[in-house]
Amino acid sequence: MLSKRNPQLNKHGELIHLLSIEGLPRAVIEQILDTAGSFLSVNDREVKKVPLLRGKSVFNLFFENSTRTRTTFEIAAKRLSADVINLDIARSSTAKGETLLDTVANLSAMHADMFVVRHSESGAPHLIAQHCAPHVHVVNAGDGRHAHPTQGLLDMYTIRHFKKDFRNLTVAIVGDIVHSRVARSDIHALNVLGVPEIRAVGPKTLVPGDLRDMGVRVCHDMAEGVKGADVVIMLRLQNERMNGGMLPSSGEFFKHFGLTPEKLALAKPDAIVMHPGPINRGVEIASEVADGKSSVILPQVTFGIAVRMAVMAILAGNEA
Amino acid sequence: MLSKRNPQLNKHGELIHLLSIEGLPRAVIEQILDTAGSFLSVNDREVKKVPLLRGKSVFNLFFENSTRTRTTFEIAAKRLSADVINLDIARSSTAKGETLLDTVANLSAMHADMFVVRHSESGAPHLIAQHCAPHVHVVNAGDGRHAHPTQGLLDMYTIRHFKKDFRNLTVAIVGDIVHSRVARSDIHALNVLGVPEIRAVGPKTLVPGDLRDMGVRVCHDMAEGVKGADVVIMLRLQNERMNGGMLPSSGEFFKHFGLTPEKLALAKPDAIVMHPGPINRGVEIASEVADGKSSVILPQVTFGIAVRMAVMAILAGNEA
Amino acid sequence: MLSKRNPQLNKHGELIHLLSIEGLPRAVIEQILDTAGSFLSVNDREVKKVPLLRGKSVFNLFFENSTRTRTTFEIAAKRLSADVINLDIARSSTAKGETLLDTVANLSAMHADMFVVRHSESGAPHLIAQHCAPHVHVVNAGDGRHAHPTQGLLDMYTIRHFKKDFRNLTVAIVGDIVHSRVARSDIHALNVLGVPEIRAVGPKTLVPGDLRDMGVRVCHDMAEGVKGADVVIMLRLQNERMNGGMLPSSGEFFKHFGLTPEKLALAKPDAIVMHPGPINRGVEIASEVADGKSSVILPQVTFGIAVRMAVMAILAGNEA
Repeated sequence: MLSKRNPQLNKHGELIHLLSIEGLPRAVIEQILDTAGSFLSVNDREVKKVPLLRGKSVFNLFFENSTRTRTTFEIAAKRLSADVINLDIARSSTAKGETLLDTVANLSAMHADMFVVRHSESGAPHLIAQHCAPHVHVVNAGDGRHAHPTQGLLDMYTIRHFKKDFRNLTVAIVGDIVHSRVARSDIHALNVLGVPEIRAVGPKTLVPGDLRDMGVRVCHDMAEGVKGADVVIMLRLQNERMNGGMLPSSGEFFKHFGLTPEKLALAKPDAIVMHPGPINRGVEIASEVADGKSSVILPQVTFGIAVRMAVMAILAGNEA
Repeated sequence: MLSKRNPQLNKHGELIHLLSIEGLPRAVIEQILDTAGSFLSVNDREVKKVPLLRGKSVFNLFFENSTRTRTTFEIAAKRLSADVINLDIARSSTAKGETLLDTVANLSAMHADMFVVRHSESGAPHLIAQHCAPHVHVVNAGDGRHAHPTQGLLDMYTIRHFKKDFRNLTVAIVGDIVHSRVARSDIHALNVLGVPEIRAVGPKTLVPGDLRDMGVRVCHDMAEGVKGADVVIMLRLQNERMNGGMLPSSGEFFKHFGLTPEKLALAKPDAIVMHPGPINRGVEIASEVADGKSSVILPQVTFGIAVRMAVMAILAGNEA
Repeated sequence: MLSKRNPQLNKHGELIHLLSIEGLPRAVIEQILDTAGSFLSVNDREVKKVPLLRGKSVFNLFFENSTRTRTTFEIAAKRLSADVINLDIARSSTAKGETLLDTVANLSAMHADMFVVRHSESGAPHLIAQHCAPHVHVVNAGDGRHAHPTQGLLDMYTIRHFKKDFRNLTVAIVGDIVHSRVARSDIHALNVLGVPEIRAVGPKTLVPGDLRDMGVRVCHDMAEGVKGADVVIMLRLQNERMNGGMLPSSGEFFKHFGLTPEKLALAKPDAIVMHPGPINRGVEIASEVADGKSSVILPQVTFGIAVRMAVMAILAGNEA
């Protein structure tokens, strides 16, 4: 999907769109994580606002509904003092037969500065980035099964926060890998940041063998997958995507791959448990684990705001 | 529903959540009304803004849709310079099976400062207040049949504005008392503020006898209920809640309990007529009365913004 | 619909509501266009904000859904630093049986400063302007088939920008004139601004002969209509309004009245092509024309933000 020159970077190698972690240089990823660190303190202040995006217009273009993700971007943009416009695209003129690119051209002509795009089709944010006006920055907020780069980045921020160094880690990603844009983004980021062992754990229907091409160890046995891990990333079992019997039942899934205290005991004693949310208690994760001392699920949410602020602030500072 | 220590107050007796008027000390109610008075002038100014909540994130969590009430809180928060995030919870991840408390924990982790909660289940705002992070303040914007404390407070503000002193008043609340969270909140407030005669007026199906336990005089006859009243609070006849034949018809209701000029003539000559809105003309109130000189229905709306600003400003100044 | 005294003007002849271009003096139209010119530069700045409406509350009252139009007003208001409240009226208390005027009276009582009204009924914004509190300004954002004055004004801005002088122009408006509030607003404005030849072009079912009463030349032949034109305004073919067979088919329409490069070649060589959007490619306009060098469709969008800022800023400065 990426053309020769990385469409995310300008000729100086600076970030102008965030479309996918695939192809992002390590230095850019680290710049985002470092910048996020400085914004974390903003979110702890009495007045949680900085004027970096004052007078900028950020459009949340959600072709696929996601209140939670939209909210995180809305908060991040408002804390940067941007004007935020939420567009419920499903009800707008695309319904009147306008093409995606015409919609985007129109919004660009309103002097938009940034589009945060969620779309059920993989590649939609790339398409928009290729065609929108040069002054507009595009952030992928999740496209099809392809990528969810801000989730990947906040996961990296979380791992770095708790584990400091990526270079000795074993990270297990458990569950519905094949449908997960989060898993794809995480795997790309973990590779770039030098994690030596990345495991994809789940049943054969959800964790196909060709994931090995991404430098991943594939485990169809949970004990093998979790054993000795420093980080366990549980994925949401997307029941709504499961039509067609890729799984016997969610109870069956929990029995084999749900993270219980017993299974977690196989990981390192100081292992952290992550989840992109929203969690399904008793489906992919036991409540004792989700609420337990190893869980860093809520810190992930907190870091997610700071990471999104960082991405927006960096983009706004760079020219195409 | 309230535990031993009032969950609305910190150990210094200061307001940290507004969940119900039940259990609020008179001094706290009066502090809110006095503060609202000072905000009324803000709403009359050219620039209707004060920076008291600048950089704070106020989340409108409306599990039950109410555009009007949401709007009043949104305006109030914006006039205090807060960042406001509207969450249409019906379409969000609760629909994906996430629990109420997980949703709230997630939003807290985004460094929310205040949740304005509307929910069809009585007690939902209490539950949220008990479980959310200590830095978050909860305002009940209406829960089931339980309470609607900001409506109760704006009603008290209205009565105080027009009648000055609560201690000699006769206040008649007319209509569907049994389903009304407004009526419950008003009755608690009127009791605390020392109103000597509170009447609940309506048919037996809508005004049960056990309301007497709340210190209320129950009247099943409109003439008796309105006679000599200083304040007549008409409630909305919630047709949508009336399935099951608690009433013969809305026409029948209007004949007996609808407020007409003739029935209003039984009240004191300077009586005021209130209504929480939206009004049903010709169902619980005649247009001549709604638009007449005794009506203070629109001033209630104006005062409501100031009261909500006062509640938010006071909460933001107090620590758990 | 307009009463003797123009309800859009105060006794000094200053704009207090924008309801329709019909009846607007030329000086007022030119004031809006001149003011829009100064706001265009604001939209090009790093910080696209001016404090003219700081602390003002602008309500978008969209009784008919239109994400695009709502967005343009929302951006315009935010760039003027207003607080913007979007009301999705379809889901609000009007659904609970409240009358339009009661809804408006309630919002006025919240100290609204401006209502931007979209309604499927012609005349609804006039009705609101007649009944709302004197401190509230009303902007018609499209009412039924009646008027869409800000679209008319942005069209005039566009023509003036590219053609400088209205007094020698031939302007062809092509398509579904009879259903178009845009066409009506354009025709009124073009007349006031002194355009000598205004043509209404389309099939008899969509361009009735009595349009001649508005000073328009009616052309049922596209070649005749476009020939020698300086400006060609294509209207959207509203398929959704076409139930009942006023047209053979959209393919048939395109064949006769769709703007192709061949038909455009009949106009002046420097003719500009306009369209209110969203465009139907291959229905009323060929992609080669929409994306071609004569097209000023995207500049229209850009100018539209500046024109709406101008209207709001002028209204906010005038008293009833």
